[in-house]
Amino acid sequence: MNGIAKYEARALSANSLLCVGLDSDKAKIPAQFANPFEFNKWIIDQTHPYVCAYKPNMAFYEALGAKGWDYLAQTVDYIRSNHPDIFTICDAKRADIGNTNAGYVRAIFDELGFDAITLHPYLGKEALAPFLEREDKVSIILCRTSNPESGEFQNIMVGDKPLWRVIAERVATDWNTHHNCMLVMGATYPEEFAGLRDIIGDMPLLIPGIGAQGGDLAGVMRYGIAKNDLGLIINASRSIIFAQNPAYEARTLQAQINGFRARTTC
Amino acid sequence: MNGIAKYEARALSANSLLCVGLDSDKAKIPAQFANPFEFNKWIIDQTHPYVCAYKPNMAFYEALGAKGWDYLAQTVDYIRSNHPDIFTICDAKRADIGNTNAGYVRAIFDELGFDAITLHPYLGKEALAPFLEREDKVSIILCRTSNPESGEFQNIMVGDKPLWRVIAERVATDWNTHHNCMLVMGATYPEEFAGLRDIIGDMPLLIPGIGAQGGDLAGVMRYGIAKNDLGLIINASRSIIFAQNPAYEARTLQAQINGFRARTTC
Repeated sequence: MNGIAKYEARALSANSLLCVGLDSDKAKIPAQFANPFEFNKWIIDQTHPYVCAYKPNMAFYEALGAKGWDYLAQTVDYIRSNHPDIFTICDAKRADIGNTNAGYVRAIFDELGFDAITLHPYLGKEALAPFLEREDKVSIILCRTSNPESGEFQNIMVGDKPLWRVIAERVATDWNTHHNCMLVMGATYPEEFAGLRDIIGDMPLLIPGIGAQGGDLAGVMRYGIAKNDLGLIINASRSIIFAQNPAYEARTLQAQINGFRARTTC
Repeated sequence: MNGIAKYEARALSANSLLCVGLDSDKAKIPAQFANPFEFNKWIIDQTHPYVCAYKPNMAFYEALGAKGWDYLAQTVDYIRSNHPDIFTICDAKRADIGNTNAGYVRAIFDELGFDAITLHPYLGKEALAPFLEREDKVSIILCRTSNPESGEFQNIMVGDKPLWRVIAERVATDWNTHHNCMLVMGATYPEEFAGLRDIIGDMPLLIPGIGAQGGDLAGVMRYGIAKNDLGLIINASRSIIFAQNPAYEARTLQAQINGFRARTTC
């Protein structure tokens, strides 16, 4: 099954566009968990009915060296063994040139077994071919990020449009031959999504910035939802995994998202 | 000692602008070496008199999972223990947002102990603060890369100049507060370096693309050398490490580079 089809099937069967970010910073996980994998296991047990996807950010695991790699491998394995229909995203923000990327492809798609990876666009399509040619896997291209001053280059005007929109158009019209691309669009600027669906069609958007970063969920749903009532993977990390009751937070956010879907599709 | 001062001191004492890329692809290393670390140890023993820097590319180690991490850690440790004045670059091409980068900072600067890391610019200065604030370490920003179609975004015109030059200017005038930035400039387009030194001063450039990628060394030296006769870290990987005689190849390339230095400074 193509990775995008996997996401769509899970989003429909679980009735959820929610992604939980497994940003399991060892310094922040409660003391009763021996390590980040044990913590993730508990988070997954608590939240799996309410999600379409999980997204560990590689930085929190890489910080722990070889052990961190093992915690991450155990985490993906636990998801695949117990909930094989949940879409898994490695938020690694990688991108090297040409065949060098084969190392990352092997590590993240084949060894760890993720369905998708986040990628920097700056080196261009030709450099990213080893990712894009994997028809079974999804390449999620950083387009408009959720950090406060992300506009430094992303909003530079190229003719009459900002650079991030040039990138969105290139990905949609030229990179997506195998229908295996998504875009990262931060929730902090949803009004900028206006008109984007005319260019990218139903291409799914990975939306960081909801929750602790204070993104605008109503705006995201209004401007971001695709015609097929899907097309969004809305991520929350800290606001769910470090909450008193992660299951409650995940269920509540899933319902909030679906409330807006009902409204938008009425 | 500041990281740039470390590079300059070594470049002077070894009379070398050469960097050897430890892209030790497990599939390509000769059969007599038990693992990539044993191979790297041999390469370092063979080539250290002729280099100012070593640059392992993370992708080749990440491909091997937790074991790869250990081979990389052993490699940096071997360099630091035996040749503590050699500048070490982790070619990781990372960049996440804000505090998430703290994981990469801890891993690559503190745990592994590299002097420098390569970074994608797309998320902006504010996102990269955890790297840039490390006055003792060097942030090497991807600017103009050596892959064949790197121009897809890097050459997009922003007003009267290509995007890569906008990035070079931002890094030189705004990001470099602690004098700890360098730029990646591929050897495949050295004529584009013309005028760059007027903007960036003596800021060192990391130059990939010499050797197997067929870059233009004469052009690099002509347009790239800084007024202080330094300012270049010229990397070759495969053409040295997989040669019959790595010591000979390294010494020869060091001499070729210095030949052009003599000419340029005459």
